[in-house]
Amino acid sequence: MASYTHHLFVRGNVGEPGHKRGCCDPEGLQRLRDAFKIELKRRGVAARTRAYHASRLDQCEHGPVVVIYPQGIWYGRVTPGDVPRIVEETILGGEIVGDLAIDETCLNNPASPHRRGPAGSS
Amino acid sequence: MASYTHHLFVRGNVGEPGHKRGCCDPEGLQRLRDAFKIELKRRGVAARTRAYHASRLDQCEHGPVVVIYPQGIWYGRVTPGDVPRIVEETILGGEIVGDLAIDETCLNNPASPHRRGPAGSS
Repeated sequence: MASYTHHLFVRGNVGEPGHKRGCCDPEGLQRLRDAFKIELKRRGVAARTRAYHASRLDQCEHGPVVVIYPQGIWYGRVTPGDVPRIVEETILGGEIVGDLAIDETCLNNPASPHRRGPAGSS
Repeated sequence: MASYTHHLFVRGNVGEPGHKRGCCDPEGLQRLRDAFKIELKRRGVAARTRAYHASRLDQCEHGPVVVIYPQGIWYGRVTPGDVPRIVEETILGGEIVGDLAIDETCLNNPASPHRRGPAGSS
């Protein structure tokens, strides 16, 4: 046994209420990270995967964000309800969950139209 | 401009004093993460790289740990003094810093001899 097949970083920082780029985890409960940890264990892949909290991922305008490395897959507006299908389709199946995927052109792009305001306000 | 060429996660969790697997950042100052941010900016690669704090990386026995994705390069016992050469050799040069690299067989391996005790005690 060596390194990880999938290393998930869940953005769980708590931004100020009303911040122009939104706040990914206003309740600060890291519920999303915990949901991944539970599901990864339930599906029997906990030994080769990890789900951690990241202080920031700088994609706040996409809502709660998860990045999966080394594949470099970014998902936005992720809820705990999305966790089983991410684990099923991406971790186990090697497929992208299309409706959650953040477009490559929107990542790390100050000109992204999603940066106009908080998630859902523009 | 799209995603990142290098995404660095710096383990900066504060473990309990005397924890058997050691404590990566006993002062809780995230100095290592800050050193990376400063150096990445100084070398002109801040726009395409990020250095974040990760809540855990589960490799405490290797001292302060940095993982660089999507390359999947792990460095252990990293100090702020190592930051310039990591940026120079790995981020800019694409090379591994050999004396800091964590061996693949020691990652995510409960049988690693490094887990016997805190860093430097075994």
